[in-house]
Amino acid sequence: MGTVTVRFLPADERVSAMPGDILLDVAMNAGIHINAACGGEGACGKCRVVIKSGEVSCQESSLLSAEEVKKGYRLACQTRLVGDAEVFIPDEFPLERAAVQGPRIRVQDGRGIVSQEIEKLVGGAWYNPALKKFFVQIDPPTLDDNVSDLSRLLRALKQQHNLENISIDFLLLKKLSPSLREAGWKVTVTLVQTRMESQLGEHQLRGSRRPKMISVEPGETTHKHYSVVMDIGTTSLWGQLIDLHGRKTLAEASAYNPQIRFGDDVITRIVYSQKPGGLATLQQVVVEGLNNIVHELVEKAGVEKAHISHVTAAGNTVMTHLLVGLDPKYIREAPYVPVANFIPPVRAVRVGLDVPDHVYLYTFPSVASYVGGDIVSGVLSSGLYQRKELTLYIDIGTNGEIVVGNADWLMTASCSAGPAFEGGGLKCGMRATAGAIEKFHINPATLEPMIMTIGKVKPRGICGSGAINILAEFLETGIIAQNGKMNRSCTTHRIREGADGLEYVLAYKEETGAEEDVVITEADIDNLIRAKAAMFAGYQCLLGKVDLTFQDLERVIIAGAFGDYIDLEKAITIGLLPEMPHDRYVFIGNGSLLGARLISLSNELLDDGERIARKMTNVELSEDHSFMDKYMAGMFLPHTDGRLFPGVSARLASTKARC
Amino acid sequence: MGTVTVRFLPADERVSAMPGDILLDVAMNAGIHINAACGGEGACGKCRVVIKSGEVSCQESSLLSAEEVKKGYRLACQTRLVGDAEVFIPDEFPLERAAVQGPRIRVQDGRGIVSQEIEKLVGGAWYNPALKKFFVQIDPPTLDDNVSDLSRLLRALKQQHNLENISIDFLLLKKLSPSLREAGWKVTVTLVQTRMESQLGEHQLRGSRRPKMISVEPGETTHKHYSVVMDIGTTSLWGQLIDLHGRKTLAEASAYNPQIRFGDDVITRIVYSQKPGGLATLQQVVVEGLNNIVHELVEKAGVEKAHISHVTAAGNTVMTHLLVGLDPKYIREAPYVPVANFIPPVRAVRVGLDVPDHVYLYTFPSVASYVGGDIVSGVLSSGLYQRKELTLYIDIGTNGEIVVGNADWLMTASCSAGPAFEGGGLKCGMRATAGAIEKFHINPATLEPMIMTIGKVKPRGICGSGAINILAEFLETGIIAQNGKMNRSCTTHRIREGADGLEYVLAYKEETGAEEDVVITEADIDNLIRAKAAMFAGYQCLLGKVDLTFQDLERVIIAGAFGDYIDLEKAITIGLLPEMPHDRYVFIGNGSLLGARLISLSNELLDDGERIARKMTNVELSEDHSFMDKYMAGMFLPHTDGRLFPGVSARLASTKARC
Repeated sequence: MGTVTVRFLPADERVSAMPGDILLDVAMNAGIHINAACGGEGACGKCRVVIKSGEVSCQESSLLSAEEVKKGYRLACQTRLVGDAEVFIPDEFPLERAAVQGPRIRVQDGRGIVSQEIEKLVGGAWYNPALKKFFVQIDPPTLDDNVSDLSRLLRALKQQHNLENISIDFLLLKKLSPSLREAGWKVTVTLVQTRMESQLGEHQLRGSRRPKMISVEPGETTHKHYSVVMDIGTTSLWGQLIDLHGRKTLAEASAYNPQIRFGDDVITRIVYSQKPGGLATLQQVVVEGLNNIVHELVEKAGVEKAHISHVTAAGNTVMTHLLVGLDPKYIREAPYVPVANFIPPVRAVRVGLDVPDHVYLYTFPSVASYVGGDIVSGVLSSGLYQRKELTLYIDIGTNGEIVVGNADWLMTASCSAGPAFEGGGLKCGMRATAGAIEKFHINPATLEPMIMTIGKVKPRGICGSGAINILAEFLETGIIAQNGKMNRSCTTHRIREGADGLEYVLAYKEETGAEEDVVITEADIDNLIRAKAAMFAGYQCLLGKVDLTFQDLERVIIAGAFGDYIDLEKAITIGLLPEMPHDRYVFIGNGSLLGARLISLSNELLDDGERIARKMTNVELSEDHSFMDKYMAGMFLPHTDGRLFPGVSARLASTKARC
Repeated sequence: MGTVTVRFLPADERVSAMPGDILLDVAMNAGIHINAACGGEGACGKCRVVIKSGEVSCQESSLLSAEEVKKGYRLACQTRLVGDAEVFIPDEFPLERAAVQGPRIRVQDGRGIVSQEIEKLVGGAWYNPALKKFFVQIDPPTLDDNVSDLSRLLRALKQQHNLENISIDFLLLKKLSPSLREAGWKVTVTLVQTRMESQLGEHQLRGSRRPKMISVEPGETTHKHYSVVMDIGTTSLWGQLIDLHGRKTLAEASAYNPQIRFGDDVITRIVYSQKPGGLATLQQVVVEGLNNIVHELVEKAGVEKAHISHVTAAGNTVMTHLLVGLDPKYIREAPYVPVANFIPPVRAVRVGLDVPDHVYLYTFPSVASYVGGDIVSGVLSSGLYQRKELTLYIDIGTNGEIVVGNADWLMTASCSAGPAFEGGGLKCGMRATAGAIEKFHINPATLEPMIMTIGKVKPRGICGSGAINILAEFLETGIIAQNGKMNRSCTTHRIREGADGLEYVLAYKEETGAEEDVVITEADIDNLIRAKAAMFAGYQCLLGKVDLTFQDLERVIIAGAFGDYIDLEKAITIGLLPEMPHDRYVFIGNGSLLGARLISLSNELLDDGERIARKMTNVELSEDHSFMDKYMAGMFLPHTDGRLFPGVSARLASTKARC
């Protein structure tokens, strides 16, 4: 399928696109402004364009009169390209392209990808899941051959699959005899070939793996073989349902971590856990949240929960402790000690997960109190530990986590960024789900926004990647100054005094799917600046520990549970990411979730995860006296030290005081 | 300490004994009759003898007048030897010694013995228990050294005990952090170094052993380290408390298996297990029985239940299934298939045992539906599997179990003997505990009994070994004929018509510790004959399978949960054991319990147990058409084929029709 060319007028910009692409998307991705308020739903009618020539297909809209349609008017958000086209944008200010341009990289979060794309990141043996299913046909017992049912089954596994040295789960043994007979001696057996119930301690050699039989199902069900993989974030929970047989991702779901109501960050959660019943409550609510996700996943994928064989989860150290019910008390008190970094796999029903009895929950090993299994999982998924190139790995989340190193060494640190980049702590913040404003552009002349939401529905709020874009646009257009304060002299009705100070109205109530106007406030902007300052100070301190600078880095990998897109240039513009050539950046999306999926599919990568955890050296930033200075210096857009961002500084100087 | 000599008059028998021995015991063991009705308690006054000369020490008795004492009268049951003595037995019939003589072998059931005596039986590595305790002193965490609590503990175990590659129980992990701190970083760790939770399947190679940490106790408690070992019989439960540190047996306890009320034998138990709730009930009551034993053991030994580290149990296949809650349904139906012969170690609290949470229950592996872990345990404890000599191993119990073989091969069979040899199914039957008539002799002239009970208290009933002795005495004195019927022409008040037919009164109500006369009935005798016939037919069939006869045997090992003594000659007289030179016999008592103790103390022997189970070939006697013929031929005392018992037959011919 070839590309098509769209010629935007009056700017006379030519843009390549694919047949089927939505015109508004094509414009947004090319940095061409079209007013848009409803997020792409076709409700506000603001994105009207004139199709001068070419082939397009459109949804009808009551917002256009018959006469307008006759004249070629269409809503850009409801128009799909068929062939080449010429499109005229009425009232459009001929914006210099450079001001909004930037490579918009599709986040490679791996939805739907299993082998090719991931293999570009991570090498190593592929498709050798810890959980395997085998179909066996067993000769029924006779007087001449009346060995025990277990012996009979093991003998058949040996004869038909050359499997030996298998142990058996006790609970399964209780059901074995009727299971075999009811199934007419034709069954599918699930074996786990990892160190279930006897997980390695730290600093230890790996033991040998003996397969353990955990399930016997009637008939041939080898093709019904699923795992649930989870990222347990402080703010957000993410889950995917993996088809271990078909080697693909069947569904994804996410939700805020219900523990949020007991505190925004890990420290307040630990404090709550020390109240009577607190630990049990925190475990219970996060498990409830995960159970909702499991339910949603099996609904979406249309599979039976009974065929889930495995659960893998990655989370920071505190989230992991709370998930399995370990007391995180000493993580908070100096000298900041977790109970354990390696937690033995535990029967999932024992922590309350609503999956079959025989399913084990594997949690990624942690490194230290503030460097958890999520970062180990991310490093695994990025392949950083396999490569020679000196790499900086950044996981942007409530707990920002940073790794520097390569195949030879790994150093890591964490810094508390707060939940702003997950939409938390913002007045109209939300997770990166349908209705979240994700793509954002401002017409510098009119200060009117161009808004695209996830799912192309009416805007309901702002997600993390949207907030980055908004902040950058505000800065570029002068709506805010470099200190994050709004410019009162801007002449637009969208800037107004709200309950919490100055705010910019992204969408008025009637244009939204929300109860109120969707706004971003000065306080929100302050939160975002604090978050990015903490992250940036973290990179600087960690690199400083090993006498490196940004210039030494050959690769920067960005992870984070964002939506579909993150705009690299805008993240650099606000100083969240260091200014360096774009081709050094790789985005992997939710690296923690990706890693959890990878170990579900490959025993070798599971081993790698444990190796990574043992190999990483942790740096406590709270012990680094320079951190606070660097953090304060970062409380400016992009940074008080403009030399760190020469390109951004130059651009801002040239576009200053536009309003 | 030298022996002393007792000269019994008027028979003029000289008998060697030890200073301190009780005179009645010495006479009984030498086959010299002294009337005795109260079991040795000093209550009936019947065992009066005259001390003609020599040194003895006596309890005073109100049953002797001052004048009698002056004349030298003493109660034999209250008299201990100090030096040589001459003892006159009044009214004593000068019995030919041969008729009652026989080597009375002290049952080597191993109470109190740990190394020397057992090592005569079983070779192999000694004292390497699967459960070990280690005391560690741990450096508290600092900011410079803030590895996880688990890492810290594992590091100390490595540094102080060179222990590596340790896994940890998840439940323990939950308690680890407070445990370490409350103990001031000085703790005792319990490690299990066997295949907990991942027991081998059958026909499989052995896996490597990784130590698993299951307990952390404050302070230095390595000397408080106990295991409970159990024999789960169809009729009786036996338990011992073993000091794993001091390497000795601290206490023993036993009780009837409370499942008896749901059926006498394994078949009726299986039938009951198939009723609604039946399986759960059977498991529950046997566990209650075992819990009572555990309670009694810790009481007797004065130790804390909290320091029990391990439970090992041996039982037949059905008892093992019921103990852990496996459905025995298919054991009863052709082709007689158990769920499993190898059952993974299971957390003892999960089956309901009242021991600490972290304790695992190890059950001996079985061979087949009717050849259980008890026989594997017995074969282990006898050392038979280590020796070149062709050996017959006989476990006399409700399920009679028989093994023939040596270090090269092992064949086994079982036959349902019924509970008679455990005192079950007899009108006044009881277990081999205090008050059970164990030693028994009849004065052929008067037909008056000489009775000794376990614990030297008033008789309350008859135990298995007592029943064997009684049957043999009855046969020798003509009280019963060779077909087991009582001789109505015997002139003694002790034979009478009871509610269930003819019976012999062993002790009248006023002489007993019971509510009624202690009797043995013709129906009891019939039960005993059926039981011994089943056993003997079993030996014959099993030997026949491998073309051997009794003459080929170099050794016969007798096991069974009898009391302290079994009389070999009497067991041969009734045809329970084959007639062969006495020096080929070895008695090991409760072999099943002994084996359970051995594996508690030695990992190597635990391995041997699994090897034995894999090595044994099972012969189904129910499929042997000659069994029933042989069984019928055995329904005679000693046997319808007198050539099998030439010595007994000759003796009986010479003493016939004495009454």
